[in-house]
Amino acid sequence: MATKKFLLEEKDIPTAWYNVAADMKNKPLPPLNPGTKEPLSAEAFYPLFAKELVHQEMNQTDAWIEIPDEVRNLYRIWRPTPLVRAFGLEKALDTPAHIYFKNESVSPVGSHKLNSALAQAYYCKQQGITNITTETGAGQWGAAMAYAAKAFGLELAVYMVKISYEQKPYRRSIMQTFGAQVIASPSMSTKAGRKIITDNPTYMGSLGTAISEAIELAMQTENCRYVLGSVLNHVCLHQTVIGLEAEKQMEMAGEYPDIVIGCFGGGSNFSGISFPFLRHKLNGGREIRIIAAEPSCCPKLTRGVFQYDFGDEAGYTPYLPMFTLGHTFAPPHIHAGGLRYHGAGSIVSQLKKDNLIEAVDIEQLDAFKAAVLFAQVEGIIPAPESSHAIASAIAEAEQAKREGKQKTILFNLSGHGLIDMASYDAYFAGDLTNYQMTDEALNKSIAPLEKVI
Amino acid sequence: MATKKFLLEEKDIPTAWYNVAADMKNKPLPPLNPGTKEPLSAEAFYPLFAKELVHQEMNQTDAWIEIPDEVRNLYRIWRPTPLVRAFGLEKALDTPAHIYFKNESVSPVGSHKLNSALAQAYYCKQQGITNITTETGAGQWGAAMAYAAKAFGLELAVYMVKISYEQKPYRRSIMQTFGAQVIASPSMSTKAGRKIITDNPTYMGSLGTAISEAIELAMQTENCRYVLGSVLNHVCLHQTVIGLEAEKQMEMAGEYPDIVIGCFGGGSNFSGISFPFLRHKLNGGREIRIIAAEPSCCPKLTRGVFQYDFGDEAGYTPYLPMFTLGHTFAPPHIHAGGLRYHGAGSIVSQLKKDNLIEAVDIEQLDAFKAAVLFAQVEGIIPAPESSHAIASAIAEAEQAKREGKQKTILFNLSGHGLIDMASYDAYFAGDLTNYQMTDEALNKSIAPLEKVI
Repeated sequence: MATKKFLLEEKDIPTAWYNVAADMKNKPLPPLNPGTKEPLSAEAFYPLFAKELVHQEMNQTDAWIEIPDEVRNLYRIWRPTPLVRAFGLEKALDTPAHIYFKNESVSPVGSHKLNSALAQAYYCKQQGITNITTETGAGQWGAAMAYAAKAFGLELAVYMVKISYEQKPYRRSIMQTFGAQVIASPSMSTKAGRKIITDNPTYMGSLGTAISEAIELAMQTENCRYVLGSVLNHVCLHQTVIGLEAEKQMEMAGEYPDIVIGCFGGGSNFSGISFPFLRHKLNGGREIRIIAAEPSCCPKLTRGVFQYDFGDEAGYTPYLPMFTLGHTFAPPHIHAGGLRYHGAGSIVSQLKKDNLIEAVDIEQLDAFKAAVLFAQVEGIIPAPESSHAIASAIAEAEQAKREGKQKTILFNLSGHGLIDMASYDAYFAGDLTNYQMTDEALNKSIAPLEKVI
Repeated sequence: MATKKFLLEEKDIPTAWYNVAADMKNKPLPPLNPGTKEPLSAEAFYPLFAKELVHQEMNQTDAWIEIPDEVRNLYRIWRPTPLVRAFGLEKALDTPAHIYFKNESVSPVGSHKLNSALAQAYYCKQQGITNITTETGAGQWGAAMAYAAKAFGLELAVYMVKISYEQKPYRRSIMQTFGAQVIASPSMSTKAGRKIITDNPTYMGSLGTAISEAIELAMQTENCRYVLGSVLNHVCLHQTVIGLEAEKQMEMAGEYPDIVIGCFGGGSNFSGISFPFLRHKLNGGREIRIIAAEPSCCPKLTRGVFQYDFGDEAGYTPYLPMFTLGHTFAPPHIHAGGLRYHGAGSIVSQLKKDNLIEAVDIEQLDAFKAAVLFAQVEGIIPAPESSHAIASAIAEAEQAKREGKQKTILFNLSGHGLIDMASYDAYFAGDLTNYQMTDEALNKSIAPLEKVI
């Protein structure tokens, strides 16, 4: 067996993030004031986000944004991450496809989320901000943000979706060990939380609700800003270190991917692995298929509508252009908690609309089946979220076998599942089911959407 | 800040393990037949262990044992591991000491244990063995062995110490995900287990008891052998890849350690990090202090006696030379489950007797205090076991500060604590206490020991 891992040196950690918006012919639509339907100025976002992050969010001209030394130094804790040729998986599938994965699970918090958390904490600190708030679904983002806040000396409050708070107590403990305050959402600490608890006392939460609570707390706290772990353009920007490293590593392997796959919740890891490869396609380079693998219970890219919608359940955010299932949609409690979000980021949504990327939906049981196979042949237990990318990669490898073609497939292993073992227990016990969103539920959920586009 | 990590390439993974016994002036004493007190032949161990492992166990002449390609290829899943300069910790302690740690936590099962698990599974497979049994304390070894067994197509049964089975359900799930059978020990499935449950129905188990059960099952099962994750010479041998890599990486850093530290349970990670450095001391090279950091509740090296004793609670093993607290000693239920073992391996015991290594005992609360500091300044949450090494390294760095000396300290971060967060919860809740072994308990525990030496 040849070398399995392709390793870079610390000097190969990218020095700039790639801003795909600069290369898009059809730019992502701007956020709007929900009342006037007028585009919002950068200034309108300053109370909510650090200024530099707002500028990155709106930047549609600079393809490269320099990574500050302080951030790049902290990337060195775990970056560069390995690219791995999945010989074990190829053999198990008996496929002519070459399968590679970028192993973001080696981060000390177990996922790719630290790539953006450190950047966001840095820019907040630079601006003299002392307190930040955020939300977390499965807890991957919260764990990353907790360490990032500690690294830059910021106070952090995290609203954690209640179902995850109960299903994944270890992630709560990780955040607390790093010094963060963790609140189960919906909570009684905000107006948005109190309203939803009053309306539905047993509601176990969603990312949309947790975002509402985190925004509300940020607006009420002195010298405080809000940070988000996915969806937004600047988050996708920071995650491009994944694909930029992978690009160099694929060169080391002497191959170029025919297909690049990431699981899809709000878009952070998907954008991170795919945008650097997409840039060649946008700039007239070689053809490549890019696939977002989303859970079938939360199928915004495969079945949602392209429209302006709120990013949160309570409607505190501006109108954002997105493929959406409706901002009040409460997805079923699948174990891939990080993928339970109603909408897609504005860049990904535009790319999907322009057919520059594809999307597939993955059933929960297929994701776990893929996860167990991957664990047994590659030795790494994947996060339930990442397992959607694995399932999609397996489907493509099986298709390559049927076609008798040697395709090169690259997917992002966004995180490990060592803290999600209760999910595996439930899978083995036969307690999990698939969830297909019904047409009725979909129609009901998108019916209230205002027709802006 | 300069480069923090020192990274090797895959070609730098050692091609041979280092066998310290070949370089020891006073060789470790042989195992004895408990009845006749005569040394046991290799053949006497063949029913229990794979032959090649027995030969490695008894080899006192070859300083280097070649690593089979099949094992080295699987090492590539995560090796070489990084050596990290702990700038964050140095700054927090305001010490002139330079602190380095070898990060074995990047293994896909979260600890160093995979280094030996893969080797043992390989030699069993080579010999045509189909089934293996083992025990696990905190679950680190069991998790590693579960993947190793799967990688080589072996059936595995793991006896997991009951307190860990209940405290650390995620490690049980990891083993099951890799396809292993996991049984809480003491169990009713063996004579040894039934006896101890009858004598003490609420007994929560110990490594000594779990070893008895695993041995008993191995002896009763066709084409089955027993594998052990620590204590034995061949296990320490396999772990030397840690120190051999660290030696090259310290060279890259342009330093040589004055002090090398490993936490101490049975000796596997301690031997792994220290023996390659010890070899220079044994061969007349430069001076170096080597420190085993053990829990104060289980102080075999600091307070135990050097004597022949059984390796397990029921007395199934031969007489082994060791620093021991008595094989019936049941340590308190500290959260560093992997360190709850009554004895030290025969090589480490001989080295301690000859004052070639030192030992310190660490209180549970000091270990957790060190762990939380380390997590907050280095971004990695350590395993409770590894935290004993961190506490010892901090004590040495503080001593260096008092002395105003620039000492170079290297410790092994044997594993991460992401699956041990319940321990951190208990620590933050103030539910943990220190346990000092009383003289009375010690005297009672060692009283039955036969005077063989």
